[in-house]
Amino acid sequence: MTKEDVTAMILSAKKTAGLTWEEIAERIDMSPVWTHSACMGMNAFPKDRAAALVSALGLPQEAAGVLEESPTKIWEQAVPTDPCIYRLYEIVGVYGPTIKALIHEKFGDGIMSAIDFDMQITRVPNPKGDRVRIEMSGKYLGYNSW
Amino acid sequence: MTKEDVTAMILSAKKTAGLTWEEIAERIDMSPVWTHSACMGMNAFPKDRAAALVSALGLPQEAAGVLEESPTKIWEQAVPTDPCIYRLYEIVGVYGPTIKALIHEKFGDGIMSAIDFDMQITRVPNPKGDRVRIEMSGKYLGYNSW
Amino acid sequence: MTKEDVTAMILSAKKTAGLTWEEIAERIDMSPVWTHSACMGMNAFPKDRAAALVSALGLPQEAAGVLEESPTKIWEQAVPTDPCIYRLYEIVGVYGPTIKALIHEKFGDGIMSAIDFDMQITRVPNPKGDRVRIEMSGKYLGYNSW
Amino acid sequence: MTKEDVTAMILSAKKTAGLTWEEIAERIDMSPVWTHSACMGMNAFPKDRAAALVSALGLPQEAAGVLEESPTKIWEQAVPTDPCIYRLYEIVGVYGPTIKALIHEKFGDGIMSAIDFDMQITRVPNPKGDRVRIEMSGKYLGYNSW
Amino acid sequence: MTKEDVTAMILSAKKTAGLTWEEIAERIDMSPVWTHSACMGMNAFPKDRAAALVSALGLPQEAAGVLEESPTKIWEQAVPTDPCIYRLYEIVGVYGPTIKALIHEKFGDGIMSAIDFDMQITRVPNPKGDRVRIEMSGKYLGYNSW
Amino acid sequence: MTKEDVTAMILSAKKTAGLTWEEIAERIDMSPVWTHSACMGMNAFPKDRAAALVSALGLPQEAAGVLEESPTKIWEQAVPTDPCIYRLYEIVGVYGPTIKALIHEKFGDGIMSAIDFDMQITRVPNPKGDRVRIEMSGKYLGYNSW
Amino acid sequence: MTKEDVTAMILSAKKTAGLTWEEIAERIDMSPVWTHSACMGMNAFPKDRAAALVSALGLPQEAAGVLEESPTKIWEQAVPTDPCIYRLYEIVGVYGPTIKALIHEKFGDGIMSAIDFDMQITRVPNPKGDRVRIEMSGKYLGYNSW
Amino acid sequence: MTKEDVTAMILSAKKTAGLTWEEIAERIDMSPVWTHSACMGMNAFPKDRAAALVSALGLPQEAAGVLEESPTKIWEQAVPTDPCIYRLYEIVGVYGPTIKALIHEKFGDGIMSAIDFDMQITRVPNPKGDRVRIEMSGKYLGYNSW
Amino acid sequence: MTKEDVTAMILSAKKTAGLTWEEIAERIDMSPVWTHSACMGMNAFPKDRAAALVSALGLPQEAAGVLEESPTKIWEQAVPTDPCIYRLYEIVGVYGPTIKALIHEKFGDGIMSAIDFDMQITRVPNPKGDRVRIEMSGKYLGYNSW
Amino acid sequence: MTKEDVTAMILSAKKTAGLTWEEIAERIDMSPVWTHSACMGMNAFPKDRAAALVSALGLPQEAAGVLEESPTKIWEQAVPTDPCIYRLYEIVGVYGPTIKALIHEKFGDGIMSAIDFDMQITRVPNPKGDRVRIEMSGKYLGYNSW
Repeated sequence: MTKEDVTAMILSAKKTAGLTWEEIAERIDMSPVWTHSACMGMNAFPKDRAAALVSALGLPQEAAGVLEESPTKIWEQAVPTDPCIYRLYEIVGVYGPTIKALIHEKFGDGIMSAIDFDMQITRVPNPKGDRVRIEMSGKYLGYNSW
Repeated sequence: MTKEDVTAMILSAKKTAGLTWEEIAERIDMSPVWTHSACMGMNAFPKDRAAALVSALGLPQEAAGVLEESPTKIWEQAVPTDPCIYRLYEIVGVYGPTIKALIHEKFGDGIMSAIDFDMQITRVPNPKGDRVRIEMSGKYLGYNSW
Repeated sequence: MTKEDVTAMILSAKKTAGLTWEEIAERIDMSPVWTHSACMGMNAFPKDRAAALVSALGLPQEAAGVLEESPTKIWEQAVPTDPCIYRLYEIVGVYGPTIKALIHEKFGDGIMSAIDFDMQITRVPNPKGDRVRIEMSGKYLGYNSW
Repeated sequence: MTKEDVTAMILSAKKTAGLTWEEIAERIDMSPVWTHSACMGMNAFPKDRAAALVSALGLPQEAAGVLEESPTKIWEQAVPTDPCIYRLYEIVGVYGPTIKALIHEKFGDGIMSAIDFDMQITRVPNPKGDRVRIEMSGKYLGYNSW
Repeated sequence: MTKEDVTAMILSAKKTAGLTWEEIAERIDMSPVWTHSACMGMNAFPKDRAAALVSALGLPQEAAGVLEESPTKIWEQAVPTDPCIYRLYEIVGVYGPTIKALIHEKFGDGIMSAIDFDMQITRVPNPKGDRVRIEMSGKYLGYNSW
Repeated sequence: MTKEDVTAMILSAKKTAGLTWEEIAERIDMSPVWTHSACMGMNAFPKDRAAALVSALGLPQEAAGVLEESPTKIWEQAVPTDPCIYRLYEIVGVYGPTIKALIHEKFGDGIMSAIDFDMQITRVPNPKGDRVRIEMSGKYLGYNSW
Repeated sequence: MTKEDVTAMILSAKKTAGLTWEEIAERIDMSPVWTHSACMGMNAFPKDRAAALVSALGLPQEAAGVLEESPTKIWEQAVPTDPCIYRLYEIVGVYGPTIKALIHEKFGDGIMSAIDFDMQITRVPNPKGDRVRIEMSGKYLGYNSW
Repeated sequence: MTKEDVTAMILSAKKTAGLTWEEIAERIDMSPVWTHSACMGMNAFPKDRAAALVSALGLPQEAAGVLEESPTKIWEQAVPTDPCIYRLYEIVGVYGPTIKALIHEKFGDGIMSAIDFDMQITRVPNPKGDRVRIEMSGKYLGYNSW
Repeated sequence: MTKEDVTAMILSAKKTAGLTWEEIAERIDMSPVWTHSACMGMNAFPKDRAAALVSALGLPQEAAGVLEESPTKIWEQAVPTDPCIYRLYEIVGVYGPTIKALIHEKFGDGIMSAIDFDMQITRVPNPKGDRVRIEMSGKYLGYNSW
Repeated sequence: MTKEDVTAMILSAKKTAGLTWEEIAERIDMSPVWTHSACMGMNAFPKDRAAALVSALGLPQEAAGVLEESPTKIWEQAVPTDPCIYRLYEIVGVYGPTIKALIHEKFGDGIMSAIDFDMQITRVPNPKGDRVRIEMSGKYLGYNSW
């Protein structure tokens, strides 16, 4: 049983139960972003969250161990093609140097961690058209000198 | 006089005046993210903001016209190497499919615009180490059917 | 049942019924461009259009749900090899900067949306050899300043 | 004197004279798309159009010969980064197979020429936001069998 | 039944019958170059040539329709590795600018069509070692000005 | 004095003298294809041909030695962008396997040399539009077994 | 004055003074690895270390400010060509999955930081041939769940 | 039976027996790094170590011969995507020139061998967060002059 | 039956018979380099050598015809990853321009053929460690002028 | 004074003195392959060889130090384009797996060093056309187990 197998079981159980990712996230008391990512096999479940998911979706017990394994995170294309994902890549290309400059101005020489990291996505009503809000938060890590 | 020339003038004036990007942004009444990006030549200034910057930094009048020109946004590497920018690219690789899935769940088939878009960066104090918060907001655009 | 499965069913039903894409488009009251693209799995069907297609081609009911799913749009080669598609890529390479310059001249700093977008293809009789006419129309999106 | 030199002269003369591409095109009695493209050095001027441009913008006589030379059309990146041009590339990726299928359905096995080709760009007023319309027309070329 | 299936049938029938490509080409009254290319699925058969091939090689009737379909021409590597094909790629690299310059000198600004195109390959006896002769002929297409 | 320097001198002398490549080739008693290629620095001149060119175009004596040097043949892009050259690349992609198969059928396991090689380009009048004819001839080289 | 300028000054001063990197590192009381990297412009100097270097090598005062700036870390090739550096790349390719597996076994799901990081290089005498020892130490960062 | 087959057997036996890589390494009296790498098929087992592993994990006798075969070491992406492995790639990019400079300073013109090479990974307790220590040792190889 | 099938049969027969490549080469009276390469499907067998191999290894008669077919030589990565093969690639990168310069000095403008080519590999005893000797011999081919 | 500067001085002195690489190599008592490579800046000179070259060619004394520096070996294209160098790359592609298999058969699991390495190039007279012989010799390095 691989992570791909478990992802397929989750998608099938989700469809059968008619659940959204938000609802699944709520049942295991985690955020929707993390829940989706971990269900897709891009993050590892802590032991108790794996048990919670197995129970919430009626997965076989063996799945819990697989959910806890550390994933190898592979994405296939240097430049993503799907328009929804490409726009994010474009934002990194256009605003990357700006984010870097402002982190350096506010913190010093360092980076925002992509490991000690979390993210929220919300729908913001707006009369000119609702907006997607993405909030990322990562620990500042200063470069070491030695 | 090109956008590169004007960027060089801005950097030099900023250094001489001892200003931060936050302070420059305040003087022209725009956000620091947009101000830095536009000063780097990756966004075009509205007429009045160009005039404000020219006056705030004592740039030559001709610079205003250059600041208003539409930029050609080029970034050089499919996979960025600077660690601070790479972490953002990695986030897009790891969480891109998740962001896409949640946008579809919350809005329907569409994307977050990278054009009708804004961004804020803030330093969030945290006893375990301060955190970088990046907030992006873009208009939802639904795919057209015809 | 995946989008690939449904595409295969559509192609098979189309062959059996001896229908053209124009005729299928007519039966579901959509344009041929959108109809082909959505049948290939590159666009999502609105609920009523999915029902119309399922009924027009005698597909299984389950197919309707699959047609409504948001696709992940992946194309495989940075530079397309098929001569018919390559010519379009070449047009973007040769005339891209021109289209950009004229959009900026006519509208200001912004882009033509590829999301709020439609396209028509027509055969134009011409004594020196008939011509292909491709008409694209996309909403102008101006860059945000903030 | 190279094509790059002449392009620089044209841009400078255009700025000094305060002309738009539409106005320059009108003065030499050609379309704005072709005029911009040829001024950028991506198309060759017919002898009389070169003379007309030289006279309209007060360029040196030697420029006429350079404008008539066949250009070597080079564009630098397999995947363009500027958002305005990328959207066109994305349209080719998403709709390329559709355009191909409909050309085959309407004409037979062949392509739309990118050489015997023309293009218009217009601004279409629309209460929900004005739209960019791009019309391409290219001669149909059927594959030879021998 | 796909183009790949039919290619496999052709190769098998060719082996069983002990025919060369020259002989197959003769039986359907086409050139060997075109015949091989179309049998490989890189060109579409006209209706009568498809019927001729099906009859000459004893293929199932359904194959005729598949032979008539417009192919999607995909080749897999930007730089081919097989030495026999690489040498052709090298010739394009080394002599491409020369061919371009001489076409411009003899015809004006334009190209040799790869669509309205034919090719012959012959063995030319030579006391110092026989030579391969490749003759290509393509319609000249002049760039349009508009 | 480099090969680039000598190429620039040749182009300038050619322009001043109002000569075509065909005429230059005639004056040094070589073919136009080889003459252009060697003048561009992509082939080395035999001693007497170098002397002939220097004399025909009035180049400085030092140029003769440079013309005789073995060039390093570099071309810049895996996939050429200029439409005239791209069509040749496309022909290699589409017909490469066919040329290979027919060489194997006519000669055995081997290749057409790109070194012991020559090429002619001619304009062929045709009522439906004149055609470009490219004739390549290369020595057959059979693979060695040992 | 850019980081490249200051690197050139350092190299020149180092040559004139006949110093090794070890000796320079000793004078500013930092490790040789960090000292070389920061002198090459790939790391930022803390304020007091910049002052120490300027004084140790007799650099102009303005250099101190440049040494303190956050660098943009760019390296040019996805696969390095220099044999000494390539061997390190090869080690990452061959042993990367092993390092990952053992980090997961010893720590849990996470990574070794390349930011809160240090490195030593030593020469280890060995009768069969001296050995290079590279010691890397980076803070373990566990993936966040939220 | 291929190396992939044997790797799968090892992983399965490891899971069943509840062993860590450290424990397996201990049972065959080799280091954990080498043991994992060789079990993954990236290094060849000496005859007696293969026998030891087969016996320790209860693998079929045929597996021993496969473990002794020289592997073909293939890794799939020029730039690795998994964050844990990417950080190592980044270290090579950032510190590669530094490692090279210090090897040259300490040894002369040469490299650290990646063949006569070994590596240890240890967990170093640290009050600010435990650290990963990676120690590499490779034989110095000086370039030959001849 | 494909070349891959026959390669698998050869490898299996070799293992069963406990033969080395040297021994197989001896039995068919060819060199080990050519024998291995042709058995791997990268070279075609002459008729009598194919018969010899089929008889030596007890392969089915049909295999002989497959061994005689001209292979399509494909290798998968522009930069090979296996360390043993990479070192050869590195030698081409480092010494390629030198080999070219010395061929030009000794022969004139031309190349060493990779088609009329042979190679030997021998183990050379050496007290400081045995050495691998690779001897390549290819026919010199001078560039044609015409 | 950089390695590029010294290479230019060497080429100029070589031309003036009318020397071949063989003759220069003889004067400094090294092989032509190593001499050319080191003069091109791809290998470092031992102290006495640097002095010998400076004296043989009348270079400035400062050049000696530069010749002794360790070079950074960079080559620009993953796939070389010059036909003479490409043929070597092709040989690695076609025969790489064969060389690897025979090294493993003759020595065990390991590689031929490209560092403890030398090479000779000779012209071998042959009535069917003289041949280029390239002899490479590199120390066998066995993989370490630990």
